[in-house]
Amino acid sequence: MPRIAAIEAGYYRVPLETTLSDSTHGDMLAFELNTLRLRDTDGVEGVGYTYTCGRNGAAIGAILQRDLPEQVIGQEADRIEALWQKVWWGQHYGGRGGPTVLAQSALDIALWDLKARRLGQPLWTLLGGHDPRVPCYAGGIDLEFPLDKLLRQTDDNLAKGFRAIKMKVGRKRLAEDVERVRAMREHLGEGFPLMLDANMKWTADEAIRAAHAFQPHDPVWLEEPVIPDDMPGQARVVREGGLPIAAGENLRTLWDFRQLIALGGVTFPEPDVTNCGGVTPFMKIAHLAEAFNLPVTSHGAHDVTVHLLAAVPNRSYLEAHGFGLDRYIAEPLRIEAGCAIASDRPGHGITFDWQGLDTIRA
Amino acid sequence: MPRIAAIEAGYYRVPLETTLSDSTHGDMLAFELNTLRLRDTDGVEGVGYTYTCGRNGAAIGAILQRDLPEQVIGQEADRIEALWQKVWWGQHYGGRGGPTVLAQSALDIALWDLKARRLGQPLWTLLGGHDPRVPCYAGGIDLEFPLDKLLRQTDDNLAKGFRAIKMKVGRKRLAEDVERVRAMREHLGEGFPLMLDANMKWTADEAIRAAHAFQPHDPVWLEEPVIPDDMPGQARVVREGGLPIAAGENLRTLWDFRQLIALGGVTFPEPDVTNCGGVTPFMKIAHLAEAFNLPVTSHGAHDVTVHLLAAVPNRSYLEAHGFGLDRYIAEPLRIEAGCAIASDRPGHGITFDWQGLDTIRA
Repeated sequence: MPRIAAIEAGYYRVPLETTLSDSTHGDMLAFELNTLRLRDTDGVEGVGYTYTCGRNGAAIGAILQRDLPEQVIGQEADRIEALWQKVWWGQHYGGRGGPTVLAQSALDIALWDLKARRLGQPLWTLLGGHDPRVPCYAGGIDLEFPLDKLLRQTDDNLAKGFRAIKMKVGRKRLAEDVERVRAMREHLGEGFPLMLDANMKWTADEAIRAAHAFQPHDPVWLEEPVIPDDMPGQARVVREGGLPIAAGENLRTLWDFRQLIALGGVTFPEPDVTNCGGVTPFMKIAHLAEAFNLPVTSHGAHDVTVHLLAAVPNRSYLEAHGFGLDRYIAEPLRIEAGCAIASDRPGHGITFDWQGLDTIRA
Repeated sequence: MPRIAAIEAGYYRVPLETTLSDSTHGDMLAFELNTLRLRDTDGVEGVGYTYTCGRNGAAIGAILQRDLPEQVIGQEADRIEALWQKVWWGQHYGGRGGPTVLAQSALDIALWDLKARRLGQPLWTLLGGHDPRVPCYAGGIDLEFPLDKLLRQTDDNLAKGFRAIKMKVGRKRLAEDVERVRAMREHLGEGFPLMLDANMKWTADEAIRAAHAFQPHDPVWLEEPVIPDDMPGQARVVREGGLPIAAGENLRTLWDFRQLIALGGVTFPEPDVTNCGGVTPFMKIAHLAEAFNLPVTSHGAHDVTVHLLAAVPNRSYLEAHGFGLDRYIAEPLRIEAGCAIASDRPGHGITFDWQGLDTIRA
């Protein structure tokens, strides 16, 4: 069995074309990107990455550069599950979440990419092979956009082939949110899939009131109504709010998802492969959702995640938002008639423009 | 109100005199120490620190050096609660635990030290002022010690003035653990407070069987029987195991503690001020425990923590283990007749030997 021979970390600051905003993270001017390249003893390569909306990237880089090599170099490349356990428990005391699990996610993605490339298989067939066409939506990060800019962005997204769209809510007054949602529903027409994302803005009671106010405008889901730490509160929002609830971008482990799902606190579990620990836990979370008769959606990293959702029968929408990364990827995500298409290239099929990335090193 | 004028981070590798071991972390040869020094616009200083058992320290250092200064410099030094919220939510996406919360803990400790020093108050009176004498136990990290070494360590601890002792369990066979506990009980005599620490070794069912096997030897508590992620499992251990359960060193937030306590999953909540977010959340956790009619104990950083337990009425034992740090502190913890004494020096009263630390920079 080939062993891991080399590991190389990169840390970049990806500028955004337009300032993004939501109810918790304020204005976002740039995203941080951390990459990890592996090479095995046969010379086969694998690439993984993770990202943040502006902080902790140097910490992720430090883990990738200082802590991971001694745990990973020389290990059998195909024993991904054994490596996942070794790194999780080896890093546990100062880790167990935060930058550590983001770093581990990048490692796990790279290991799966390497394995799939060795086998000449696209990731989506290697992991299950359900359907390469995955319904997808444009994830707007647009809380502070004036209404005309929000509608212009929407028209752009329709022109790009999207057939479902998410917008931010959680402005100072709920009435402002309701008016914006009403305007979007009018603009999009009845039945067009529209998602709402509150980014943890409310208490459970506030969220229940908001859900009732949004109900006439028929959203597909209301996302992250409360902080991820208030699981019983969110379970109450599910029961009493009258809307499906999506959440998961701020959960960091399979166990977090088990806890939330078992409590009845989520309708659309929404893991992010770059922060839940990688492909290995993402697939377990998708299967856990299936066992509870729930769909699974996704957050971020659409180019990798399209493969994971294409692998499983309970996939719902893929979130697409590129945060400027598309400019540094050879063949960005293909979207046709509202579906993202998992590529047939071996691995996840992403080829970074390393020379271009060199110009934005952090 | 004075503002924060300067912030300086240090990162060290503290060698251990003897190799430590427990059921999860294997052999530990050195601990990592991250320090943070603050100075306000009046020239008053405050010092905080955090530590790991060997990994993630570079990541903590990166956060202290790269992410914190822009959030902290120029802010009002006395508005610790406002700063805590700003940093927690400002770091949230790539943070929310792991190295990020350890870094934030060091910051929060430094802020409280600074505030107390400004006021010329020891931390324990500033925070409540219950009783400066805190019962304390020697925390052995000794799973792989042969029995005679374990008993020798015990005699050393008795000679140092300890009147309560913790030992590790979680060896390959439960029968080995039971025999070691039996030998310790015989050595210490009936009624001597003896704690057991399993470091997350077991499933809930295994833990219940182990608890029953230890019961005849009358331990004060059984610590971390299962992983922190299996809260319902640990609640079952509390209900069915017949022993008090301590846990908390691997929880990272007030919310984690609320969840575990509300589930009935812990008898002795055990926050660590260097990884639960600092003094601010530690005090809230202590008060939360009081509200649930539970005692509070502690993990690590005994020199700071003695002040926090001395402040509250529901304090039980302080854990004392120095991991080699005592050599770099001017006046290490005073222990008299089984009690640790919170100092009357302003702040937490710790003065680091910065020149000595300079020789062990990581």
